[in-house]
Amino acid sequence: MPSWNDGAAKKSIIEFVTRVTKADGPDFVQPAERIAVFDNDGTLWAEQPMYFQAFFTLDRVKALAPQHPEWKTQEPFASILKGDVKSALAGGEKALGQLMMATHVGMTSEEFEKIVSDWIATARHPKTGRLFTEMVYQPMLELLTYLRANGFKTFIVSGGGIEFMRPWSERVYGIPPEQVIGSSVKTKFDLRDGKPVLVRLPEINFVDDGPGKPVGIQMHIGRRPIAAFGNSDGDLQMLQWTAIGAGQRFMLLVHHTDAEREWAYDRQSPIGRLDKALDEALRRGWTIVDMKKDWKRVFPFQ
Amino acid sequence: MPSWNDGAAKKSIIEFVTRVTKADGPDFVQPAERIAVFDNDGTLWAEQPMYFQAFFTLDRVKALAPQHPEWKTQEPFASILKGDVKSALAGGEKALGQLMMATHVGMTSEEFEKIVSDWIATARHPKTGRLFTEMVYQPMLELLTYLRANGFKTFIVSGGGIEFMRPWSERVYGIPPEQVIGSSVKTKFDLRDGKPVLVRLPEINFVDDGPGKPVGIQMHIGRRPIAAFGNSDGDLQMLQWTAIGAGQRFMLLVHHTDAEREWAYDRQSPIGRLDKALDEALRRGWTIVDMKKDWKRVFPFQ
Repeated sequence: MPSWNDGAAKKSIIEFVTRVTKADGPDFVQPAERIAVFDNDGTLWAEQPMYFQAFFTLDRVKALAPQHPEWKTQEPFASILKGDVKSALAGGEKALGQLMMATHVGMTSEEFEKIVSDWIATARHPKTGRLFTEMVYQPMLELLTYLRANGFKTFIVSGGGIEFMRPWSERVYGIPPEQVIGSSVKTKFDLRDGKPVLVRLPEINFVDDGPGKPVGIQMHIGRRPIAAFGNSDGDLQMLQWTAIGAGQRFMLLVHHTDAEREWAYDRQSPIGRLDKALDEALRRGWTIVDMKKDWKRVFPFQ
Repeated sequence: MPSWNDGAAKKSIIEFVTRVTKADGPDFVQPAERIAVFDNDGTLWAEQPMYFQAFFTLDRVKALAPQHPEWKTQEPFASILKGDVKSALAGGEKALGQLMMATHVGMTSEEFEKIVSDWIATARHPKTGRLFTEMVYQPMLELLTYLRANGFKTFIVSGGGIEFMRPWSERVYGIPPEQVIGSSVKTKFDLRDGKPVLVRLPEINFVDDGPGKPVGIQMHIGRRPIAAFGNSDGDLQMLQWTAIGAGQRFMLLVHHTDAEREWAYDRQSPIGRLDKALDEALRRGWTIVDMKKDWKRVFPFQ
């Protein structure tokens, strides 16, 4: 893990992996049980100044606007089309729900996959000018590789959309679609001209955040992870669920402390708030990554 | 696959696998895309005279009866306690729902896993006197092994309960819990004396049958299988969904034709009805296994 500075965080990772893989040691864990779960936003890639899926949503509103002349006067769409995202999001959860439903459903699963693939191939972050898939954390990529080289199976467990991540998770993280867990809408099997399709419906199926993360883990994996990696209060229950199992356990929080190379935020941030989980990590001795100190490099392009 | 007689069914399997694994051939499929999905009841293990999970349910009613004196007079429980399953099930879906909710929910996911594990270790089939996990099809076990040896990832996609299968699927089929897809109830994250648990709730989460199977496949796997194995109309949409993809595809139905070594049933059977799917298999040239002719041996103990 060349992008990690030597320090307590790196040391704790290596010690844990060494213990559970030592074939004749007391803490040995069978490869089948070496399940590691990773939050995505703020843990594997950045999440400021807003979740990257929100940029996708805004871009989709703009792309679809010609088919929706009524959006010119209808909120939250009207504000977005005027470039006033702040006013658009002033409508809170209701506005967000409207935006999701206007942009994420109604098409088939294959059509949505293509929309995401096309967008992620070209869309760029407003601050760095980089592709969003370049704004992944180099030390975390190395950690994923290190764990897999030691027989771990790596999963994403994210509040983001499961079908928003799958089109690129294998290429970017080496995590195949069947190891991606996320939020979802309901879908419906249908025959269109005799051809089977899955249609994305305007109804939430599952919210994979906070207490939903252990639920999603059990639903998809069916066994308890032995290592969990997050960065915000939305990851707290996933870390608790991981921590309570028998044998060696590893819990880690990425603390965003680097305003220069990335962003610095924690207890007060509306995006990726890290408050209760930070207290619990301190109390329980979970590993906390101080991004500024622990990481030689943040992004691969730096 | 020593338990398969030489014939069209065995030949079609081997030809398909040979084509998609030939590295310089026109039909080569990358290992990551070699996804094979298997129905469970009637495809990997037997399902007569009723689904094995129904035996589990009846046994649980009997085990829980001392805590429910009211069941002595309350249907469908009263009939079951008198040994009259037929009358109990005369109440149709409503009765089944009551039985499920009385036996499958209210406990934590860990408690339910232990209940299933304890039952499956000792419960025996009323006709053969064998453990239910012995009533798996030897030729299908060999097929699972053959596919995995050729780089396939094998999944169960069953109308049965996901948490009813996971405690034994790895030991019996070599299929780990994260590759088991099935029906489920909702669960809720909770803290009990500060310890995180998942509580099984009396509410259906997902029915993984018929048109639900492609939905379950997309939810859990996120890519289309290239091979699908079933035995009843409840598998039709899974086979259609598999068939429509690009490149080489393999669809197979197990036809229960062997009244002597197993059971013979198809178009008229209330359990595992095979009618529409049989017509479609014949029309489209999908592989149909004639259990009597194609299998040298049905169960491992024969």
